Amino acid sequence: MTPHVTAATVKAADRAHVFHSWSAQALIDPLAVAGAEGSYFWDYDGNRFLDFASQLVNTNIGHQHPKVVEAVREQAARLCTLAPGFAVDVRSEAARLIAERTPGDLDKIFFTNGGAEAVENAVRMARLHTGRQKVLSAYRSYHGATAAAINLTGDPRRWPSDTASAGVVHFWGPYLYRSAFHASTEAEECERALAHLADTIAFEGPQSVAAIVLETVPGTAGIMTPPDGYLAGVRELCDRHGIVFVLDEVMAGFGRTGRWFASEHWDVTPDLICFAKGVTSGYVPLGGVAISAAIAETFATRPYPGGLTYSGHPLACATAVATINAMEEEGVVEHAARLGEDVLGPGLRALAERHPSVGEVRGLGAFWALELVRDKGTREPLVPYNAAGADNAPMAEFTAACKASGLWPFVNMNRTHVVPPCNIGETEAKEGLALLDEALTVADRHTASG
Amino acid sequence: MTPHVTAATVKAADRAHVFHSWSAQALIDPLAVAGAEGSYFWDYDGNRFLDFASQLVNTNIGHQHPKVVEAVREQAARLCTLAPGFAVDVRSEAARLIAERTPGDLDKIFFTNGGAEAVENAVRMARLHTGRQKVLSAYRSYHGATAAAINLTGDPRRWPSDTASAGVVHFWGPYLYRSAFHASTEAEECERALAHLADTIAFEGPQSVAAIVLETVPGTAGIMTPPDGYLAGVRELCDRHGIVFVLDEVMAGFGRTGRWFASEHWDVTPDLICFAKGVTSGYVPLGGVAISAAIAETFATRPYPGGLTYSGHPLACATAVATINAMEEEGVVEHAARLGEDVLGPGLRALAERHPSVGEVRGLGAFWALELVRDKGTREPLVPYNAAGADNAPMAEFTAACKASGLWPFVNMNRTHVVPPCNIGETEAKEGLALLDEALTVADRHTASG
Ligand SMILES: Cc1ncc(COP(=O)(O)O)c(C=O)c1O
Ligand SMILES: Cc1ncc(COP(=O)(O)O)c(C=O)c1O
Repeated sequence: MTPHVTAATVKAADRAHVFHSWSAQALIDPLAVAGAEGSYFWDYDGNRFLDFASQLVNTNIGHQHPKVVEAVREQAARLCTLAPGFAVDVRSEAARLIAERTPGDLDKIFFTNGGAEAVENAVRMARLHTGRQKVLSAYRSYHGATAAAINLTGDPRRWPSDTASAGVVHFWGPYLYRSAFHASTEAEECERALAHLADTIAFEGPQSVAAIVLETVPGTAGIMTPPDGYLAGVRELCDRHGIVFVLDEVMAGFGRTGRWFASEHWDVTPDLICFAKGVTSGYVPLGGVAISAAIAETFATRPYPGGLTYSGHPLACATAVATINAMEEEGVVEHAARLGEDVLGPGLRALAERHPSVGEVRGLGAFWALELVRDKGTREPLVPYNAAGADNAPMAEFTAACKASGLWPFVNMNRTHVVPPCNIGETEAKEGLALLDEALTVADRHTASG
Repeated sequence: MTPHVTAATVKAADRAHVFHSWSAQALIDPLAVAGAEGSYFWDYDGNRFLDFASQLVNTNIGHQHPKVVEAVREQAARLCTLAPGFAVDVRSEAARLIAERTPGDLDKIFFTNGGAEAVENAVRMARLHTGRQKVLSAYRSYHGATAAAINLTGDPRRWPSDTASAGVVHFWGPYLYRSAFHASTEAEECERALAHLADTIAFEGPQSVAAIVLETVPGTAGIMTPPDGYLAGVRELCDRHGIVFVLDEVMAGFGRTGRWFASEHWDVTPDLICFAKGVTSGYVPLGGVAISAAIAETFATRPYPGGLTYSGHPLACATAVATINAMEEEGVVEHAARLGEDVLGPGLRALAERHPSVGEVRGLGAFWALELVRDKGTREPLVPYNAAGADNAPMAEFTAACKASGLWPFVNMNRTHVVPPCNIGETEAKEGLALLDEALTVADRHTASG
């Protein structure tokens, strides 16, 4: 690096040469980050931020975990890269450790660089395994930004890249707070959501449907914990019609919900699981698909027609090995579960009682959403769906208040998600809740009673 | 890692848990690799292989370059990961170093994890910039395996994933040795290939074409160096019709052809360049798109609707910085140019004269292809297009002969590519040519005269 790195030099080169994702390039003002450790990061002026977003909900073990950093350094010295065609110690070991944690007979791992590529390959596998083309996915979902993944996505990020012909049909998932089915209990929501999905399959033609792709717990779209029975019901529909059941655990997997995979909460085994993010906490990019025996068998003597230069990248796989081992040794998954039960759940529900702007709190583990509303009675969102500019001002003010107080929030539409590292300390989590408490007073001002 | 790693343990876990790309899982027998350095890698039995494939044509600076390894280790200790929204020293610096080397005003860099994602985003940019949907790409091309990229791909890897409706139209590029236009000179091939492309545009409707996507020098499909005037002609067609010109330099870029970007050979400036592979030599996965001022301007006040969790990943960007600096300091790009002119070009042409199986030699820098044929007169390929099993036996035997001699070849259809690290020593390159010389006697046996 250049010797005199300052916020100004970093920002200047950033504005001159870095094209940022999801952004209008002239309207952003990226914070220059100087360093990070554990649940904090800081800028060049010494401002520290408690990372309640885990970056993009990926640093499940926080920043710069010493064991994982050491593993990256060691593997870098040993062997950074090798083509996918070879057998490599760390690749074998990463696959074994992941397969050990996946449910059922999902024992074969296809590695990618990230989540979108995992979803792309899961869809390809499902289509070739079934010989069918259509894929069903949920409104209120995010599956990545490559062509197949963005078409599956059920939030407005799909619109500019939508290919009507991509063979994707969207349906509505369970979400009692804003029920698409006018349900009033979780059991009713579950039953009606399953009936809706069964109808969609029937009217699309079951023999044409290759896969149903679902986030086990939809993440960016709002952390809608599914009602008991829903995932089992989807599993049953898939079995009845020979449809491949794909669970996207890119965000929900690797400890986030207090389990290795969120599907464990409901004891459901899909045919394919997509993972990324937490598998390495993002220290080195890695994603992949865990594959059932039946689907792997389809490609036993027939070549699987997909790949990428860095499938099973050794440095990434060594990082996964170290991450999983560290999480195991330090009980990070169990910690996340307890954090949800003892600290975040109770703490956030207390905030909801105090703040007129908090319409609902939901989640589990280190994976929570607060719905901010203008009115708890009508549930009108604090800002309209997909608001921008002035329409989005209340959320923008709330976000700014969080940042000013040293809390880095995850914000999407009218929600803020509380998704800190899964190994965040209880004290830090409580400190974050206190900062959130303050920032919510800003949101309160935009409520009917505010 | 487990203390007693052997080829057997690595292979056993690989076969149990690793799902390999592009392969029939029960029919492969992956070599267990124990280590690598420079232009060599080795297995657990002490067999060393001279890497004439640069893995998947990505280790442009060879294995375990000490400066780059040190940079990975240093950055790992400092800061592994940060979300794309921040300004980060190494991200800014990587973007600056890349922008400094791209032609024209392609000064904004959007980072991805690899080549396919770079192509996906280039296509999205082109479609949104023009408001048009169709994309033209060449038969005999590879652009990656995600949905948009695989549809652009013009080799048989596209077939199983083809979406007829993806809005892609394929055309034929220049390739004198197997001319689609019955041309007999490079100049004629160039003129006719341009006329064919102009006709394709006219009949598709110029106002419907968002982009023309081309590998500057098609790589996996056969290293067909374009005739002088071709790329300039495509540039002119794009300008005339308001079409975005995308050059995919994922394989050809970062020194491979003896220039930073292959487009420099013909002094042509596209609107978007896709890169990956050589930018970090694959030590940490990284890819991206270099963006012209006009296209960047489209997303100045309108959000660019694409992204990925690891866009501009700090560890990957630090690796790019070190790779580019090392290549600059050590004159790797110039070395690759000289290697082509003084060693590989003359050496391979000498092989072609001696071996009845070598129909043509073509390439530049560290980027060469040998067409293996049954008959130099008829140019009948040594194996049919997309051959498998028994039909592919001659190439399989040739490949086995290379490996048995300690040369790791790049083989595709009836071709072998000579694509060693760009910094391979002259002695090693010559040693590789000698091994290739021997292995070609195996191919010779399958020729008309053999
Ligand atoms: C559920 C889910 N799937 C897929 C993706 C895409 O992953 P990536 O950004 O690594 O391509 C994301 C990213 O946020 C995600 O949350
Ligand atoms: C020209 C070209 N484009 C795109 C790709 C896809 O890159 P990746 O494998 O990193 O997705 C490749 C890979 O070989 C390539 O050669």
